[in-house]
Amino acid sequence: MDATDTIDTTDTATPPVSRQVDIVRISHGQRSVQTDALAEEIAIALEFNGISYATMLATPADLEDFAIGFSLSEGVVAHPREIRGVDILPGCDGIVVQVEIATEREVAMKARRRAMAGRTGCGLCGVESLDKVIRPVGRVPSGGDVSLAQLSHALTVMRGRQSLHDTTGATHAAGFMAASGDVSLVREDVGRHNALDKLIGALARARIDTEGGAAIVSSRASYEMVQKTASAGIGVLVAVSAPTALAVRLAQDAGLVLIGFMRGEQCVVYSHTDRLKP
Amino acid sequence: MDATDTIDTTDTATPPVSRQVDIVRISHGQRSVQTDALAEEIAIALEFNGISYATMLATPADLEDFAIGFSLSEGVVAHPREIRGVDILPGCDGIVVQVEIATEREVAMKARRRAMAGRTGCGLCGVESLDKVIRPVGRVPSGGDVSLAQLSHALTVMRGRQSLHDTTGATHAAGFMAASGDVSLVREDVGRHNALDKLIGALARARIDTEGGAAIVSSRASYEMVQKTASAGIGVLVAVSAPTALAVRLAQDAGLVLIGFMRGEQCVVYSHTDRLKP
Repeated sequence: MDATDTIDTTDTATPPVSRQVDIVRISHGQRSVQTDALAEEIAIALEFNGISYATMLATPADLEDFAIGFSLSEGVVAHPREIRGVDILPGCDGIVVQVEIATEREVAMKARRRAMAGRTGCGLCGVESLDKVIRPVGRVPSGGDVSLAQLSHALTVMRGRQSLHDTTGATHAAGFMAASGDVSLVREDVGRHNALDKLIGALARARIDTEGGAAIVSSRASYEMVQKTASAGIGVLVAVSAPTALAVRLAQDAGLVLIGFMRGEQCVVYSHTDRLKP
Repeated sequence: MDATDTIDTTDTATPPVSRQVDIVRISHGQRSVQTDALAEEIAIALEFNGISYATMLATPADLEDFAIGFSLSEGVVAHPREIRGVDILPGCDGIVVQVEIATEREVAMKARRRAMAGRTGCGLCGVESLDKVIRPVGRVPSGGDVSLAQLSHALTVMRGRQSLHDTTGATHAAGFMAASGDVSLVREDVGRHNALDKLIGALARARIDTEGGAAIVSSRASYEMVQKTASAGIGVLVAVSAPTALAVRLAQDAGLVLIGFMRGEQCVVYSHTDRLKP
């Protein structure tokens, strides 16, 4: 089984992505009661083979993409074919996303946790540990060069497809520009990491070749954004705002072109500038 | 022991908060090599009485404040006097922050984790669970009213004290405006939750009365931002950008005045507008 579209998914839980709320707008000393659309945010509990793994607050949309992208970018599975199914179920105060993964991956996940428990010597597993956060990332395939004009155009296209942001003003987006320059996918979320995970999951489900493409994000570029992009084999990350120093070091090590402060055809390049065509 | 300034702290690990990095700036088709200051970001492993609890990427500054604020806002301890000490030590790929807490709090922490382990029936503790994310928050003290003019001025003052943001363009800030209108503390971090936790820890360490005051954040207002603000007994949260619908519901329930899109004396009020003076 190699096809990601053989992952069975069910969804009986997902609420709307935005809600109308009564607000009071104050301007020039005048108060006016209005209604406004706000982004919904919901707790998502992620379980692998029945084992509680992490809970995050996220936009309740594209949760199958989110589950698959998170599984890949966090290294729970190495390939989409190791995911057998995704079920989205109502929880008491949120949504439970149950991911069924290959047995060998479950064994590896448990072993990793037991090792952490041993290290802290407390008889309880660690929630996270330093060596799990800063993970080695292989070099991304270079996959040919991209041009600034293409990337700038792709950012504009992505901006035009941020429908939840247009409605609510509160969400981040992550888009994928293929080697052809086409923006094939855009995903949104209240969290920038979640938006990128959703994009990575959507790319895997649609079996889109990421080589030669670029990820474009509406946010800053922190370490985790570079780590997730590299884990998906995407060699270029464009952010509209600043990166961190740690993100730049990872991009340099991973062979990833990291671009920040993208505004029209102005930008700052932080790594592997030689791969960016004029 | 009631005094928070009796918490012993040591720090042998903290690296600089920003670094000079070589960059290539592209503008109007011209490339120029320059150096620029970027915000540093480092993995912080938080341990309570030797038990690994969580790891976060954060700005390596004010880590004692961070540890104390996180302990309070995440409910690991109910009062600063339950924290005996904070040690900041170098880890293999980051910083280990060891917090020593009262024995009864350690017992409660372990019991909570065991309960989660039982619920998922896997023999491993859950990292997080839904009922831990959406936690009940008591009503904040109303503590008198604040005026929009005061809040607007406080935001301007905070903007003038975001030194790391001025240098790097990559960090968020959280500031506290006392009932008098004075901005007594500002904290910065690459993560907006971390900035708020640092502020809450700094308030606790300085034993500043939060009643009648307001928290001001340079970011959006998500659920966790409202939850942390309310947990610190602060009755007003001002954000420069949008809240989520979940954040608004929590603010309504907690008796907290939630203000978004603050620009000069324009803003949008999402809850308890009656407590905002003209």
